[in-house]
Amino acid sequence: MADKYIDIDTLKYMLYDVHQLEELFKRERFVDHDKESIDLFLESNKDFADKELFPFVKEMDEQPAHYKDGKVYVHDQVKTMMHKGGELGVISASFDYDDGGMQIPLLAHTAAYFILDAANNHLPGYAGLTQGAAELIIHFANKALNEAYVPKMLSGQWGGTMCLTEPQAGSSLSDIVTKAKPTSDGYYNITGQKIFISGGDNQFAENIVHLVLARIEGAPKGTKGISLFVVPKNRPDASGVLTPNDVTTVADFQKLGQRGYCTTHLGFGDAEDCRGWLVGNENQGLNYMFLMMNAARIAVGRGASAIASAAYYASLQYANERPQGRKLSSDGKKNPDENQSLIIEHPDVRRMLLLQKAVVEGSMSLVLRAAKYYDLEVTATSPEEKNKYNTLLEMIIPVVKTYPSEAGSYAVNNGLQVLGGYGFCADFILQQYYRDIRISAIYEGTTGIQSQDLLGRKITMGQGSGLALLSAEILETIEASKKHEALQPYAAILSEKLALTQKILQQLMPHAVKGDFERYLADASIFMEFFSLIIIGWTWLEIATKAQESLKDPDASLSEEFYIGKIETMKYFFSYELPKTLGQAAILMDPTTVTIKKEKEEYIN
Amino acid sequence: MADKYIDIDTLKYMLYDVHQLEELFKRERFVDHDKESIDLFLESNKDFADKELFPFVKEMDEQPAHYKDGKVYVHDQVKTMMHKGGELGVISASFDYDDGGMQIPLLAHTAAYFILDAANNHLPGYAGLTQGAAELIIHFANKALNEAYVPKMLSGQWGGTMCLTEPQAGSSLSDIVTKAKPTSDGYYNITGQKIFISGGDNQFAENIVHLVLARIEGAPKGTKGISLFVVPKNRPDASGVLTPNDVTTVADFQKLGQRGYCTTHLGFGDAEDCRGWLVGNENQGLNYMFLMMNAARIAVGRGASAIASAAYYASLQYANERPQGRKLSSDGKKNPDENQSLIIEHPDVRRMLLLQKAVVEGSMSLVLRAAKYYDLEVTATSPEEKNKYNTLLEMIIPVVKTYPSEAGSYAVNNGLQVLGGYGFCADFILQQYYRDIRISAIYEGTTGIQSQDLLGRKITMGQGSGLALLSAEILETIEASKKHEALQPYAAILSEKLALTQKILQQLMPHAVKGDFERYLADASIFMEFFSLIIIGWTWLEIATKAQESLKDPDASLSEEFYIGKIETMKYFFSYELPKTLGQAAILMDPTTVTIKKEKEEYIN
Repeated sequence: MADKYIDIDTLKYMLYDVHQLEELFKRERFVDHDKESIDLFLESNKDFADKELFPFVKEMDEQPAHYKDGKVYVHDQVKTMMHKGGELGVISASFDYDDGGMQIPLLAHTAAYFILDAANNHLPGYAGLTQGAAELIIHFANKALNEAYVPKMLSGQWGGTMCLTEPQAGSSLSDIVTKAKPTSDGYYNITGQKIFISGGDNQFAENIVHLVLARIEGAPKGTKGISLFVVPKNRPDASGVLTPNDVTTVADFQKLGQRGYCTTHLGFGDAEDCRGWLVGNENQGLNYMFLMMNAARIAVGRGASAIASAAYYASLQYANERPQGRKLSSDGKKNPDENQSLIIEHPDVRRMLLLQKAVVEGSMSLVLRAAKYYDLEVTATSPEEKNKYNTLLEMIIPVVKTYPSEAGSYAVNNGLQVLGGYGFCADFILQQYYRDIRISAIYEGTTGIQSQDLLGRKITMGQGSGLALLSAEILETIEASKKHEALQPYAAILSEKLALTQKILQQLMPHAVKGDFERYLADASIFMEFFSLIIIGWTWLEIATKAQESLKDPDASLSEEFYIGKIETMKYFFSYELPKTLGQAAILMDPTTVTIKKEKEEYIN
Repeated sequence: MADKYIDIDTLKYMLYDVHQLEELFKRERFVDHDKESIDLFLESNKDFADKELFPFVKEMDEQPAHYKDGKVYVHDQVKTMMHKGGELGVISASFDYDDGGMQIPLLAHTAAYFILDAANNHLPGYAGLTQGAAELIIHFANKALNEAYVPKMLSGQWGGTMCLTEPQAGSSLSDIVTKAKPTSDGYYNITGQKIFISGGDNQFAENIVHLVLARIEGAPKGTKGISLFVVPKNRPDASGVLTPNDVTTVADFQKLGQRGYCTTHLGFGDAEDCRGWLVGNENQGLNYMFLMMNAARIAVGRGASAIASAAYYASLQYANERPQGRKLSSDGKKNPDENQSLIIEHPDVRRMLLLQKAVVEGSMSLVLRAAKYYDLEVTATSPEEKNKYNTLLEMIIPVVKTYPSEAGSYAVNNGLQVLGGYGFCADFILQQYYRDIRISAIYEGTTGIQSQDLLGRKITMGQGSGLALLSAEILETIEASKKHEALQPYAAILSEKLALTQKILQQLMPHAVKGDFERYLADASIFMEFFSLIIIGWTWLEIATKAQESLKDPDASLSEEFYIGKIETMKYFFSYELPKTLGQAAILMDPTTVTIKKEKEEYIN
């Protein structure tokens, strides 16, 4: 078993030095916090993760959640996660004081979650979904629902879920058919099936509060006719006594990874006695859900980065302990009389480690940036400021969800390879992380869907004003980095890549203008790959700039190797990852296309 | 469960049309064969695969090989694979008549194995390793060993293995320590531990014949002091009676994938009664083993392509059956009143399918090319001809092993993504193929080692004469393709890429000339990625040229869609995969390096 799953120095460096958490404490919402209180919060999370999460990560894979006699059984630590985690504020930390929260910045809360995810990615989702469900109730439901459900959710006594997907609809939410029939008693009768419901059932939860998308009878077709309901597994009466609410656990999906995090199939109203309470207004369900979606997508990116972090430290430990092979001498041969090298000495192994470090830390910083934009939006003091940070968040969110998921998977793949044959063996954790992380590119909108969102909605948003705003932020980093001579070549590269982005969009945009959206979006996934690299290039230039400053700062508290490591990893990213944009640009600017179906007969066969 | 795992029309097209199997029948060794006999052989393999392999592929994953009380227990179909497979000639088909074989071309035998691998990748290895072990005995051991072991191996009664890896040595064979102590009775006493032994034990095999690398007492250090031994699990006496030979099954590794194909840890001589018989001469063991290594590496590439084939057809079937989402209309919106599209209509899904098709069929053709070179070498009528095909085989073998493994894994990853959430679920086979194929980049020399072989040995071989010979073959394809106007742009692209290869090597070679092999080889894995794309680009240009000819041929027997599919897939490869060489070239020509350790203190942390 590996010893380390996250580097706390790096996390704090990103939090305090790169993303300047302390600046946020000046904002009224966060005035009660300071570095000491946040450090304490992070330490309590780390301690919790060390003792209650990390030791069980392998066991939770080997003893997966499973279905028996209408119930889902999960690992005992799910109970600990919810109850102890609830006490620690894992669920509620960033909520308002009035709603039972600690009003800490999402930036700090995200950092804490990062620790938990890295320690054991099978557990934090139970808390995270409960948080998301509670947030929906707090923001959009009436006071009665709020009082009936939220306190027990924040303490971790009750779980929460989001019920979107249905068997026939998949990612296409406009096709959901779960029905809500109004009654004269203020509630609706709910009937339907929902699949892929994370945390949908477990033997420990006294209750689970499902936030369910459904159609009220007679509602318009498509996404405009979807409403949101609170549908508890057990409905509380006025005095809090629980009655079963006709929510059936039909099955638990067995999966490639994250096997300790149950994924259920739920049936609502099989016995026609399932009651749901409308959240907010009719037909606004998808809007409400999507207001929470940015947070959910940050969480997926965070989880993926965190799994890649755990995989990186496991492979790094192996590379530092495993002797094998020898350095090549000047005749190109190896001398068997020499001692074996540690494999971390081999350039190809170093490449695989730097690759992981670049993905893990670049993703971590990106995820924290998104959380910071969220905090800046929430605490904005003018509509312009609010709009600015909302726009910036909207612009990067598809990348925040996708890059850590896709590149994280690629990073873990390289981590596994560092171990050679052992990487494939169940005794080592890499093979598990390889499986666990694979869901990230599917959760909360697949990579294909995120890519359509990026190119189809975000890039075109406000006729390109969102992209202009984001570019201004990137240019600011480029300018700051130019103060350090050592960084000037990288600043120049990133400037070129920004210009290349414009060139690509000039080539693509006429398709959209002509109304040929199929062609405009055909290579959206390639554009996502391209744009992600530029965003992470920006991220790394920012980290390296800070590291250069720290190197010159006599008060800097970390080792020289720490800062040099950041700068060398930036160089790795610029030398090995960013050049991939050349090929992606060639694809994006190719006027021909092979992926749009032309012939009547199908040639993909 | 998917219905199809391979397209037999495509396999035969590659075999007969692209690689011209019938040309080989003119060679003396193969004169007894014709298209009809080979078709029969392929059909019997397909029938065997349909009935005995494919139906059990999921079960073999779910009921993995396991260790109990000193023994390894495997699925019942292992017995069928060995016995029925033995009868069908799976093990011996390409062997000499004199050695009990059918003397069919390796090209045809490889095609047959491709079917078996695609049907159930957990089974053919048992036969393949037995074949490899028998081949070593036939080629290098004395008549007595040959007669004692080979017939029962070819019939599948006895299994065979290759025992190379030891716990402390891993890929570094110069560090193996298993001991062989000569006795006056003609055998050696063997003591040592071997790990990662595929097919190392099972409850059905009457005997397993291990081909073991060991050091004779007093042998030189390093790779020059390694000898090869036949070490049976049970030793037969003159009359064939078997006595246990002190080979202990210590454990069976539980793995990420290929869980039905056991991977054992074996102990030799724990009770000091393990006898081994020397194969050939002392200290030549590694040379013998490496003469078989090309075949083993073809087999790994073949297996990886075949898994990717099965994954492709599973995802294609899903894409053809699953309705979801709608086409975008000219206002960029979707109309919920319209019927849902099948997901194969979406360009992004088509991209993922074309990607798989390009990798699967390109790899298949490359693997068959390697087998054909092998046949041409074996049947060469002059030393020059023999040398030519040996050189061509040596040049491409690292790519034959690596491209299907790495790109195959990437293809299966995309196949899984086509299924969305279902791709992650155990009810669907994609998640299994995703796990199964992951070993390919590790087996028989990892990607890192293949890359060092490619750039360090093959490219420099005969001062570049190997590369010149290979380039001449590629140019021949380019010339042939130019006859078709539609292919001229692609011919031009491939010519450019060949020139780029030279440019890169001119940049790298001075490092080798200076004796700085660490620097020369630092980016060998990137060179492998680059060179593989050029080799597969060549492969696809050849396939497309043949398809263009077939389109014009009134006697062509397959549908127009079949040929158009080949040409469109070539276009996909040239448009989406080949541009990746731009970024790889930039990395390879970058004069700076970040992967070679410079500082004393470690910054990868």
